[in-house]
Amino acid sequence: MRMPTKAELAAFLKKEFPQTKCTVVEVGNKSATIRHEIGVQELRPGGTVSGPVLMTVADVALYVAILGEIGIVPLAVTTSLTINFMRKPPADRAIIGVCKLMKLGKSLAVGEVSLYSEGLDEPVAHVVGTYSIPRAA
Amino acid sequence: MRMPTKAELAAFLKKEFPQTKCTVVEVGNKSATIRHEIGVQELRPGGTVSGPVLMTVADVALYVAILGEIGIVPLAVTTSLTINFMRKPPADRAIIGVCKLMKLGKSLAVGEVSLYSEGLDEPVAHVVGTYSIPRAA
Amino acid sequence: MRMPTKAELAAFLKKEFPQTKCTVVEVGNKSATIRHEIGVQELRPGGTVSGPVLMTVADVALYVAILGEIGIVPLAVTTSLTINFMRKPPADRAIIGVCKLMKLGKSLAVGEVSLYSEGLDEPVAHVVGTYSIPRAA
Amino acid sequence: MRMPTKAELAAFLKKEFPQTKCTVVEVGNKSATIRHEIGVQELRPGGTVSGPVLMTVADVALYVAILGEIGIVPLAVTTSLTINFMRKPPADRAIIGVCKLMKLGKSLAVGEVSLYSEGLDEPVAHVVGTYSIPRAA
Repeated sequence: MRMPTKAELAAFLKKEFPQTKCTVVEVGNKSATIRHEIGVQELRPGGTVSGPVLMTVADVALYVAILGEIGIVPLAVTTSLTINFMRKPPADRAIIGVCKLMKLGKSLAVGEVSLYSEGLDEPVAHVVGTYSIPRAA
Repeated sequence: MRMPTKAELAAFLKKEFPQTKCTVVEVGNKSATIRHEIGVQELRPGGTVSGPVLMTVADVALYVAILGEIGIVPLAVTTSLTINFMRKPPADRAIIGVCKLMKLGKSLAVGEVSLYSEGLDEPVAHVVGTYSIPRAA
Repeated sequence: MRMPTKAELAAFLKKEFPQTKCTVVEVGNKSATIRHEIGVQELRPGGTVSGPVLMTVADVALYVAILGEIGIVPLAVTTSLTINFMRKPPADRAIIGVCKLMKLGKSLAVGEVSLYSEGLDEPVAHVVGTYSIPRAA
Repeated sequence: MRMPTKAELAAFLKKEFPQTKCTVVEVGNKSATIRHEIGVQELRPGGTVSGPVLMTVADVALYVAILGEIGIVPLAVTTSLTINFMRKPPADRAIIGVCKLMKLGKSLAVGEVSLYSEGLDEPVAHVVGTYSIPRAA
């Protein structure tokens, strides 16, 4: 099976989630990097990025990394996600999620995502997520 | 210290998060119930409620339950959140989050949230979250 | 299919895990209660019960609750476990784990376990765990 | 403040946890590597390493990595731990836990641990843990 290219995954993401602000920066080799522009809508009081935005980026990064390996199978679903918030993301930087898959089994995938404020070295949050992969895949 | 009423917490939530669709159904006794209307914006392909919406409801439920005990201290911040997705929430029902605090210490609170599709018995997801409480509180 | 009795599950546990100190207090109705005697071996410096003992009790409680529903299928395996430590368990009380299954699907079970020091009201720790159930089951 | 050497941490571990089978392989630079010999006592039916052994190695790796940074402060306590089990560890290989701290704040540390069967490339499990650091530290 030919694996989807970055352009194909980006097109799929845009079609499947027309409202998403996530863009695919890189994909392949059991990993994916996702970028999410930050605007007023993504902020919460105190001028920091809201938690659900970080979780969204992590979830998309996991999804894209998995689809990059198994092909575009829109039925993969998140089964669990654990996030640890570590630093306050500044309001004026995009969020970058870097996912690495640690396991890609027949029915279960496990990956971790480090979330960064663009241009800064230390992660603002860390996610471990699991995805259930449909049998047909 | 007098604890905030449900109306005071609802007003605070509306002021602090003007875009939130979460409403306070109940609060007190180390617990809180939050409701989130579901519309097209909250759905993902396949006609199910998106994961970040569920996480948002859980996070707000934890926050309101904590503020209901310690007073309106806007500096409490989520430090971790673990969600398990268990059933596909139907597209046409609001999401209800029922939070119970299990620990409310001086610097750390731990709570769990069962998430339901309104009117259905079995939870669609379950969250455990931790909050850091600022010293001044 | 006839579901296993408490005595059958206790016998299975003893046979499968001959070294376990866990005993089955109750099982059935998608739940299980497990008891673990605490001695010098289970303590860590400062006179508190070690974390791995608490995790063991939670894991056994999940396992027994699942077997109580699906029958004695020794192939169910833990896929994830999240524990939050909330209070220091005193050295002189047994640990009681009370598990409730939240989902029992064909391939995945999700449950939570509240862990107590025997005789005390507030939980010392809380666990959410997931189990993979083999297809044949 | 002079940071403890590997030998000092190993001596502390042996004194504080006289029954532990964990040994310190490496420590420093916000990381630690721990090794745990596997014998009959650590196995469960089916000839695999028991989950609590893996959790113990992860917990010790986090603890040693933190003490390597803040000095030997025996009051740091685990507040949460999330483990994902990914592959069945063979019975005849030691378990190696490699911890990297992602955050080391004044009151909270967050780290991840990859757990391996010695000599094999793919991790058998992955842990994210949080530690509370006492004020005096």
